[in-house]
Amino acid sequence: MIDGSFPIGARMVSRDQGFEAHNPTTGETIEPRFSVSTTEDVAEACALAAKAFDTFRETSPEDRAAFLEEVASQIEALGDELVERAMAESGLPQARLTGERGRTCGQLRMFAAHLRRGDWMNVTFDTPLPDRQPLPRPDLRQRRIAVGPVAVFGASNFPLAFSVAGGDTASALAAGCPVVVKGHPAHPGTTELVARAIQKAVAAKGLPEGVFSLVQGPANELGAALVTDPRIKAVGFTGSRAGGLALVALAQARPEPIPVYAEMSSINPVVLMPAALAARGEALAKGYAGSMTLGAGQFCTNPGIVIGIAGDDLDAFARTAAEAVEAAQPQVMLTAAIQGAYDQGVDALEGKNGVTLLAKGAEGTGCTLGRAALFRTDAQTFLGDPEISQEVFGAASILIAAKDMDEVIALLERLEGQLTATIQLDDADVEAAEPLLPVLERKAGRILANGWPTGVEVSTAMVHGGPFPATSDPRTTSVGTAAIERFLRPVCYQDLPDGLLPKAVRSANPFDLPRTIDGSPEN
Amino acid sequence: MIDGSFPIGARMVSRDQGFEAHNPTTGETIEPRFSVSTTEDVAEACALAAKAFDTFRETSPEDRAAFLEEVASQIEALGDELVERAMAESGLPQARLTGERGRTCGQLRMFAAHLRRGDWMNVTFDTPLPDRQPLPRPDLRQRRIAVGPVAVFGASNFPLAFSVAGGDTASALAAGCPVVVKGHPAHPGTTELVARAIQKAVAAKGLPEGVFSLVQGPANELGAALVTDPRIKAVGFTGSRAGGLALVALAQARPEPIPVYAEMSSINPVVLMPAALAARGEALAKGYAGSMTLGAGQFCTNPGIVIGIAGDDLDAFARTAAEAVEAAQPQVMLTAAIQGAYDQGVDALEGKNGVTLLAKGAEGTGCTLGRAALFRTDAQTFLGDPEISQEVFGAASILIAAKDMDEVIALLERLEGQLTATIQLDDADVEAAEPLLPVLERKAGRILANGWPTGVEVSTAMVHGGPFPATSDPRTTSVGTAAIERFLRPVCYQDLPDGLLPKAVRSANPFDLPRTIDGSPEN
Repeated sequence: MIDGSFPIGARMVSRDQGFEAHNPTTGETIEPRFSVSTTEDVAEACALAAKAFDTFRETSPEDRAAFLEEVASQIEALGDELVERAMAESGLPQARLTGERGRTCGQLRMFAAHLRRGDWMNVTFDTPLPDRQPLPRPDLRQRRIAVGPVAVFGASNFPLAFSVAGGDTASALAAGCPVVVKGHPAHPGTTELVARAIQKAVAAKGLPEGVFSLVQGPANELGAALVTDPRIKAVGFTGSRAGGLALVALAQARPEPIPVYAEMSSINPVVLMPAALAARGEALAKGYAGSMTLGAGQFCTNPGIVIGIAGDDLDAFARTAAEAVEAAQPQVMLTAAIQGAYDQGVDALEGKNGVTLLAKGAEGTGCTLGRAALFRTDAQTFLGDPEISQEVFGAASILIAAKDMDEVIALLERLEGQLTATIQLDDADVEAAEPLLPVLERKAGRILANGWPTGVEVSTAMVHGGPFPATSDPRTTSVGTAAIERFLRPVCYQDLPDGLLPKAVRSANPFDLPRTIDGSPEN
Repeated sequence: MIDGSFPIGARMVSRDQGFEAHNPTTGETIEPRFSVSTTEDVAEACALAAKAFDTFRETSPEDRAAFLEEVASQIEALGDELVERAMAESGLPQARLTGERGRTCGQLRMFAAHLRRGDWMNVTFDTPLPDRQPLPRPDLRQRRIAVGPVAVFGASNFPLAFSVAGGDTASALAAGCPVVVKGHPAHPGTTELVARAIQKAVAAKGLPEGVFSLVQGPANELGAALVTDPRIKAVGFTGSRAGGLALVALAQARPEPIPVYAEMSSINPVVLMPAALAARGEALAKGYAGSMTLGAGQFCTNPGIVIGIAGDDLDAFARTAAEAVEAAQPQVMLTAAIQGAYDQGVDALEGKNGVTLLAKGAEGTGCTLGRAALFRTDAQTFLGDPEISQEVFGAASILIAAKDMDEVIALLERLEGQLTATIQLDDADVEAAEPLLPVLERKAGRILANGWPTGVEVSTAMVHGGPFPATSDPRTTSVGTAAIERFLRPVCYQDLPDGLLPKAVRSANPFDLPRTIDGSPEN
């Protein structure tokens, strides 16, 4: 079923130039050879997307919901082939990928339910006041409409949930935006399978073919062509800081600048409060080691630093964590490049004055293996060297000993923006933790107590976002229903005859949308 | 009461270097001499704002509402002095400025009411599911918090409603953001009066002094220092395209880039549909002349182009409009620089091949006078020369004759983003107007029928925004309650003990905020 072609609208396209997929577990090439899309393919995908836009964005919420559900069903219909291909291309285990497929389809269905609720469209009326003095008030009706065709970049670390039909695509399609995906070159077969599933769903629901296209290839030029195409109106990206910033720069330099939603870099600080550390340091240390080594540490929310107050309890915590890390088996990383960058990052930390290696994970034989690494330093060393606070993507983490809570706060104040921040605390810690909260609110999109940041719930209250450089736009989230807001903009209609109004804001309310009228919810 | 000083927090500051205010009606200097703020003043204002931030953003919605109402009362308490000073500095007539003061205070009170409704905070809970398989769902609570200190640039053309206590300041303060205003150098006395009013309101309500500061001066360096200060987290600006783009570039080049909400450039197309033109061309022509000459054309929403289908009806419309424009008295413009740029823009249009001058307004004697100017061209000429479509700020407008509706649509498709787009139509025009709507939705933030774009209602459904270059961020509005959203970002709290949670998301709901729980509004 995988033949190396890519869908541009309703067609599958093949090109002479090709690239290969690799199995990180074996180091071998996986068949078939994949076509490299051309910049002409990008232009055609964008032209089709622009042509589809006015029709697609005006489909009813119910019709778009049914389309998203069809995408989920088509992905499920791929069966074992999808999970097996993703395992081969990513080195991730079956249980993880089965779960990720469930999450991917669940998130499409979550947006379907969200579409049906309708509040996302923010329909708001000011009723006319013809007799108002000195001037009458007109009839004003606001709704939010899709921004236009959206470019989505697949991420390496979630070959399903943040890739072709992941959160960015699901939220953009939900908003009514046609999507052109640039597949991640680490999993082109997985990409092709999911892209075919979306293509089928578009056809099954009778939507314009331009609602979805895919381009594939290893070179950055393809992504650049996509972001600079004038028909693209927003970009979704999850990946490295350098990659995200490059896309932002391209988007800002366009004659018409556009927003880039890049989820980039986070070290996800965890603070160990004294009473919790004293009461349950061993369990915390084991939980920490489990969270930092989960999935070879290849999560945006991996806990990269843990901060505690120096003393016996922290030393005991360090010993237990070190033992757990030493016992951790090496895990296959996503690509040789990611594994190489990880090793480099670990080597750089090992070479830092004032940074001690506490433990390395077990050695192993095989390809593309990542060994966990746990370091320790003190707050002053950490603050004195900005390189230490750079994200090392993988199962590396640094335990930071602070003198006291004031130094903990000073350290947190100096951190860049984060996706998450965690406090481990017991009842006796609550008062001492209070001053942390305003700092963490300024620094992070999500604040956790007594958990680990690596699980990201897909729900209505989730925020997977945060101040720069965690993301390029802290006003949004890339996970959860609020992600749809990234791809909407408000339009106001003043005194339009009812017959000329879009259905969503007609008086009779044919889509049965919740409405706010003169400042209050309509009954 | 005006002494040329400026408030930095609770202090009034004077500096040696000074600049002067001018009366555009007389060309004379107006007393006193105004202190030029230093970059040290900018830094101090930003430091105070950052210090005030955590306290101010956590004031209750009721307390912030009462503060905004106090600001409105303090502005009203300035009495006649404010309107008289604004008249002297802007050349705008008394009735206009009295109305603008009412609008300014009304918009502060509108945000107070919006704060009390509470839905702007978007409090959203996912309740915990401890028994869910394979993993429990945590307790997730989302709210929106203020982004941080905001820089606001006063605009020349609304010395009250888009200046020191205008829409940007009102919405930022409502969100919980301290504000540092860079006053517009064209009306420094008006600026000082309003700034003192806000300073009094801050003191009267016992808020931290850093909630509001002002810097004044004619040089761009002051604004650059403000936008690049690391403590500033967002910028509000209304003014020229060049000015807005300069601020965007500065904000993007920061180590931590920040959003700039710049409302810049719009020519506000008006389409005359055939039946309306035939039935009431004379009234439309008079309405058009009235809208384009209102306030010397110094509105962001001034109708810069009117498009109709060539023929006798359009010729008659042109004759009536030309007569009305010829009879229009010259009006004092805001500054000599604006008047000079307007004359240059009119001269440039006069020199264009294929552009005909239909009428100029009456001549007059006096300073800084702007004479209205009405031009005519055809669609092909307009499309062939991008310079013709540049905004000429002032009472200049171009009537464009198209061959047919297809050419009207082609012309609209080629326009850049706009604040508004207007259709003049009768019942018989509705069907022919339908294809215009999707184009106008893509191009503009507000679409009007049978009105003129120059009135902007301050209300819940208004959108004063639109695609680039109308604004730098089409996802927002700078007028109406939704303007508050520019200065908020979401934060999610996961499993935090109730006592550590901010009041807004505590289970007991002490602020009585509307909440969405598991996807549905709480009863």
